[in-house]
Amino acid sequence: MSGTTWNTSITRVKPNELLLRGYRIDKLMGSVGFSQVIYLALVGRLPTDAEAALINAILVSSIDHGTTPPSALATRTAASTGAPLNAAVAAGVLSINRFHGGAIFDCMGMLLEGLDEYKKNDTELSEIAKAIVERHRAEKVRIPGLGHRIHSDDPRTVRLFSLADELKLSADGVALIQEIAQYFRSLGKALPINVDGAIAALLVDLDIPQALANAFFIISRVPGLIAHYHEEISRERPMRRIHPDDCTYDGPVEREL
Amino acid sequence: MSGTTWNTSITRVKPNELLLRGYRIDKLMGSVGFSQVIYLALVGRLPTDAEAALINAILVSSIDHGTTPPSALATRTAASTGAPLNAAVAAGVLSINRFHGGAIFDCMGMLLEGLDEYKKNDTELSEIAKAIVERHRAEKVRIPGLGHRIHSDDPRTVRLFSLADELKLSADGVALIQEIAQYFRSLGKALPINVDGAIAALLVDLDIPQALANAFFIISRVPGLIAHYHEEISRERPMRRIHPDDCTYDGPVEREL
Amino acid sequence: MSGTTWNTSITRVKPNELLLRGYRIDKLMGSVGFSQVIYLALVGRLPTDAEAALINAILVSSIDHGTTPPSALATRTAASTGAPLNAAVAAGVLSINRFHGGAIFDCMGMLLEGLDEYKKNDTELSEIAKAIVERHRAEKVRIPGLGHRIHSDDPRTVRLFSLADELKLSADGVALIQEIAQYFRSLGKALPINVDGAIAALLVDLDIPQALANAFFIISRVPGLIAHYHEEISRERPMRRIHPDDCTYDGPVEREL
Amino acid sequence: MSGTTWNTSITRVKPNELLLRGYRIDKLMGSVGFSQVIYLALVGRLPTDAEAALINAILVSSIDHGTTPPSALATRTAASTGAPLNAAVAAGVLSINRFHGGAIFDCMGMLLEGLDEYKKNDTELSEIAKAIVERHRAEKVRIPGLGHRIHSDDPRTVRLFSLADELKLSADGVALIQEIAQYFRSLGKALPINVDGAIAALLVDLDIPQALANAFFIISRVPGLIAHYHEEISRERPMRRIHPDDCTYDGPVEREL
Repeated sequence: MSGTTWNTSITRVKPNELLLRGYRIDKLMGSVGFSQVIYLALVGRLPTDAEAALINAILVSSIDHGTTPPSALATRTAASTGAPLNAAVAAGVLSINRFHGGAIFDCMGMLLEGLDEYKKNDTELSEIAKAIVERHRAEKVRIPGLGHRIHSDDPRTVRLFSLADELKLSADGVALIQEIAQYFRSLGKALPINVDGAIAALLVDLDIPQALANAFFIISRVPGLIAHYHEEISRERPMRRIHPDDCTYDGPVEREL
Repeated sequence: MSGTTWNTSITRVKPNELLLRGYRIDKLMGSVGFSQVIYLALVGRLPTDAEAALINAILVSSIDHGTTPPSALATRTAASTGAPLNAAVAAGVLSINRFHGGAIFDCMGMLLEGLDEYKKNDTELSEIAKAIVERHRAEKVRIPGLGHRIHSDDPRTVRLFSLADELKLSADGVALIQEIAQYFRSLGKALPINVDGAIAALLVDLDIPQALANAFFIISRVPGLIAHYHEEISRERPMRRIHPDDCTYDGPVEREL
Repeated sequence: MSGTTWNTSITRVKPNELLLRGYRIDKLMGSVGFSQVIYLALVGRLPTDAEAALINAILVSSIDHGTTPPSALATRTAASTGAPLNAAVAAGVLSINRFHGGAIFDCMGMLLEGLDEYKKNDTELSEIAKAIVERHRAEKVRIPGLGHRIHSDDPRTVRLFSLADELKLSADGVALIQEIAQYFRSLGKALPINVDGAIAALLVDLDIPQALANAFFIISRVPGLIAHYHEEISRERPMRRIHPDDCTYDGPVEREL
Repeated sequence: MSGTTWNTSITRVKPNELLLRGYRIDKLMGSVGFSQVIYLALVGRLPTDAEAALINAILVSSIDHGTTPPSALATRTAASTGAPLNAAVAAGVLSINRFHGGAIFDCMGMLLEGLDEYKKNDTELSEIAKAIVERHRAEKVRIPGLGHRIHSDDPRTVRLFSLADELKLSADGVALIQEIAQYFRSLGKALPINVDGAIAALLVDLDIPQALANAFFIISRVPGLIAHYHEEISRERPMRRIHPDDCTYDGPVEREL
């Protein structure tokens, strides 16, 4: 069966010994945070402390957004028919696409292309931003990463950007998307940078490959989907009709950390 | 449309404000680790420091196990046909069932039933363990959480149990599965407690509901599946035949933390 | 790599030649109906004309049931986020479980168990039926295959049973579920045999293995899910909130064949 | 809740009455073949006899292709872990993408674009074909619908095209893909039109919208995936390593219809 051998650089499995990217998993356990090990698995090295802090915040930012996102509704819809946990999660993950969560990929593509041009030519970032906005307007398509159904000033974006500044990790990705939002504002059409756009900009500045763009949103949201699965089977009867916006929050009132 | 209103206690969404189980998400970001926020989302309260450390180690333990697990192969199979990231992840998650990862649910059920009997009757744990083993032997079914295709002494189990001891979180769940393994050994048929069994026992001792049994394995493994997706599309040609055990590790040699 | 060789009896693939269960696929094409070839693939032989007619009617019966079934809603939810066709279909298929479509499996199990007892003991079918109903009442669980959210006399059941009679394919499976419905009626609680129950009874009488119970519903419904996918992306804007019962039919009025 | 009402033209559901695209489902049952009802559900009208015959042959053509296709392997991989039928089918469907089955979409796109140009300009089809091939060669990308891992003359393509000729349904779509294959041959690089290419050309000639391109392959293959699921759980032990090309056919030898 020559020619079928292949290679992996993720995990080495020997009897009673597991190496993840070169580190013994039993030594990582108890020593290193889950979000750092996620970074290790995906990128191949442990993050710096600053990178770890930012990745951690990204993962926390998108864990849940209530009952209206399609991924939560798809998970609850499957759960309501008696699906096992993993099938309900899969149905939810299958609803993370271009128009929900998946804008991170498109937004990274837009920013990377813009920055490529920026580096090649002697242009201002604001000129790049203007060209991007005008191209989208001419094609009458939405700019990925801008605008939100509910938030006019997305609190997750605000926090991610201020944290990235503190950690000295903001770079051209963040600068470009802010220029884009700024140019948009100058046209009298303020649209907030949504959490997808913020994550896309930060992943650009963290030098994460675009192929992994949607990875962080998916990893972040899976626990949220599981919370919805569990609430659905615990509180509701099977085969109910799930109205997407007729739901009231009855959890704890605001409490301090 | 009376009668359709429903409730959620997970997340309250208002314009520019998100509360997860009562905490503002933007305040959790940068302050609290992802694994703690996962616990918060699933359980409804932040974990103690000891609980957080144990949950973190559980999530790190199962992030990847190389290329042979069916979930990694299913993700790579889908990736090889050109699936987008989320579809490849979904295919992998759909391969986490009773015989792979999903034994945690069955094992928790076995332990909870045993401990229920233990609390009701004036019996020794070792008697409960013996009865469980003999019942499985009579029915010729495998005991969930015992035995591994590769490891005779699973390093993840060893680490999880020693950590739980240090953190003073081991209780009857761990004691019972150890009695079960011990009785099995006394029959001359040593089978290690695998990582599923270890997680099941710890989730029992952490008082996590059985309906969430498989949640932690799934949350842990999704990043590993994404690493396989990314490696597959980066290193391999499309539509290759993926031989499940003809793969060689060519990543970093063992390195220290 | 000894010990890894395995066998299949479904399809033999040679260059330029494909045998399905012994028949050349290019000869089946144009000669034999799709529903007969489905039966061939699943059962291993071509159906008789009567069997073919009944399987065909079963497959037609469940192709769609409007916008309220969870499988249609899950497919539309995924489609609305920009999912490709196959991912939207998968999300729908993952919503076919015990409480939607998947009752066929449970109902077949109930009927097969009842008939097993019937053959072993010298009992009337009506006694078996009574025992089944009383057991479910005592355990306060619903009888699979009985009752429908909308139909008091499911037109698909009526047609399937009359067709099976015409084709002389009704046997003990149909008789038993009718006895069950009859006994229920005698308690003053009329519940119709729903399409799941009718299919389950007919699959019993067709001698289809229970492991394939849900196969026919899934095969039947996939085209319906695709119709919903296509309508969703053709008529609706992305990321809309899909209200499960606020939908009006605007297709053709009733027309004759 | 104004503004949320929406419409469907697929199925009208009233108590005890179901209309599919205007036809009562109970009247379709027993009168009309499943493949015709599939066409009705997707296209909105019943097919002519010729269209019905061709759609039926398309659906039969792709029902299975043995154990090596990724969709079969993904279904078996999930089945081997204990997945329920629907989850195993979903894993298989998620492996139908650009490089397996999904080429129909890309191929239809290529043909429709070519025919659009053909109708607009006063060009020969052979010129269009030449331009298409040369463009793909310049971009060093494969032409969708051409070439097969195993078949040098795909028997399904041969049969589909001869049937379409008999039925007088071949038109410009078939002519264009044949010109493309012909031009390729003239370059000394004979590549057969594979079954994806044949279906794509026929769907163009049947005037099926491109958004439904992959629908027919998926509908056709789902029963095949279920046959693999059933064989896997019937003949194999759980959690085996599934070697993709180490499988031998042990089904019936060739038999006549």
